Amino acid sequence: MTETDAYRADRGTVGFAAPVQRLVGIGSDRGEWPVLAPRNPENHVREGSLMRDAYHEELDSIGDSLVEMARLVGSAIGRATTAILDSDLKLAESVIEADQKVDELQHDLEAKAIALLARQQPVATDLRIVVTSLRMSADLERSGDLAQHVAKLARLRFPNRAVPQDLHATILEMGQLAQRLMAKAAEVVITKDVDLALQLESDDDAMDLLHRALFQHLLDDRWKHGIETAVDVTLLGRYYERFADHAVAVAKRVVFLVTGEHADELQPDIQPDIQPAPAPGGDGA
Amino acid sequence: MTETDAYRADRGTVGFAAPVQRLVGIGSDRGEWPVLAPRNPENHVREGSLMRDAYHEELDSIGDSLVEMARLVGSAIGRATTAILDSDLKLAESVIEADQKVDELQHDLEAKAIALLARQQPVATDLRIVVTSLRMSADLERSGDLAQHVAKLARLRFPNRAVPQDLHATILEMGQLAQRLMAKAAEVVITKDVDLALQLESDDDAMDLLHRALFQHLLDDRWKHGIETAVDVTLLGRYYERFADHAVAVAKRVVFLVTGEHADELQPDIQPDIQPAPAPGGDGA
Repeated sequence: MTETDAYRADRGTVGFAAPVQRLVGIGSDRGEWPVLAPRNPENHVREGSLMRDAYHEELDSIGDSLVEMARLVGSAIGRATTAILDSDLKLAESVIEADQKVDELQHDLEAKAIALLARQQPVATDLRIVVTSLRMSADLERSGDLAQHVAKLARLRFPNRAVPQDLHATILEMGQLAQRLMAKAAEVVITKDVDLALQLESDDDAMDLLHRALFQHLLDDRWKHGIETAVDVTLLGRYYERFADHAVAVAKRVVFLVTGEHADELQPDIQPDIQPAPAPGGDGA
Repeated sequence: MTETDAYRADRGTVGFAAPVQRLVGIGSDRGEWPVLAPRNPENHVREGSLMRDAYHEELDSIGDSLVEMARLVGSAIGRATTAILDSDLKLAESVIEADQKVDELQHDLEAKAIALLARQQPVATDLRIVVTSLRMSADLERSGDLAQHVAKLARLRFPNRAVPQDLHATILEMGQLAQRLMAKAAEVVITKDVDLALQLESDDDAMDLLHRALFQHLLDDRWKHGIETAVDVTLLGRYYERFADHAVAVAKRVVFLVTGEHADELQPDIQPDIQPAPAPGGDGA
């Protein structure tokens, strides 16, 4: 059983409050980080510090909020995709309204993080966990906005369909991939599984390919859906691509926490976004 | 002379290291914040704390980095706009390369902020300044990416022009407005001028109007530039709009620091992005 398998095998034994507790608990192979036993009352008695206990409860609560935000925005992008493909106004409106909950979670998380920094004054790894959680919450909040944009486009075009039938499959695939990426990002937050985090990068490559295919379709001479649909599809493609970028960024931030590696190839947000398919001799980056 | 005028009138008297020092120094009208005199050696002697001095130097350095990032990305969006309107490949490439400097500044700022939190363990306002600076640096880094996208589109279409002549004026105006918004955001970071920050919101409304005008032009039956140009212009419009959003977000974060108000109408990032011009009976939000 690899170390990663071990992390996975004992998932659930530490309950809902696991996320950040687990992150605190996993040492890097550089051996610098404290390795804590899973939470149980015995340990707390042995540690003899109620302060430390409150501290970990606050960290847990931040981790829980991140996982909940990821769950909500993953669900939102899935439902928004259904709404735009089926031209379902009610579903679109429910996605639009639900984004408020994500925004509230982010505000709460920010307040909790600032309170924790002020009261507990963490250093080293714990400090980086809190700061990184703030960045991850911003990624997740923005992902929620992007899901909301998809739903708003569905509402804007209702009762028409924003997506022509011949792009239905591509948009469906982009929506499903986006939802899967976010589910994996949440799993990375919970498990700190570096292998899984790296897997998100190849999923993101798949999103880039879908995005390119979308542009190729748009720019094909046989495009017959007019400018408005071309504009809608261009924006939709961008929403899904950015959603995926944020999911990957969340996973990469976990990798940075676990490994301390911040190599350029692991740096979130700086990979080039896809632009329109290059003209002959052009450059797609 | 209003309080705001007073802030403005004494600008420059505290020198280049002013940004965060000034922010620390300005109390809200709720009277909760410490009001410090401008930096001078006498004060430091009176405070009798070299530790405190190092602390403010670190805060200053973070503020300086924010202002420098804003300066760089403001310049980048201006130059990228020139590059795309003139189809100037060299200029486009210089913008693309220069973004690395912005990314480096963000990494440095993040490292400085984490070091400051660990060593100095600030609380209350100072803590919020550091946390908010991290958020602002993310806005600025992303703005740099967006300027880079404009430049990449110029490079992609070279030697052709991505923007047709009849949209030249609109794109020029969007580029100039974006650059102006970022210059004002930098000024808000330096001065903590809440009135100026609120002014950014009306500038952002002007950007929304330009963005709508762009869509109207695209969707006009007389559009004769084909799908590829429609796709390019759609993405360009989105880049400028998002750039402006980030500039406004930076200013709003300063308002939050100064006033403690985080009302919904001041909340960055949650205002709806513009989508395509509504169909009759539709909804533009």
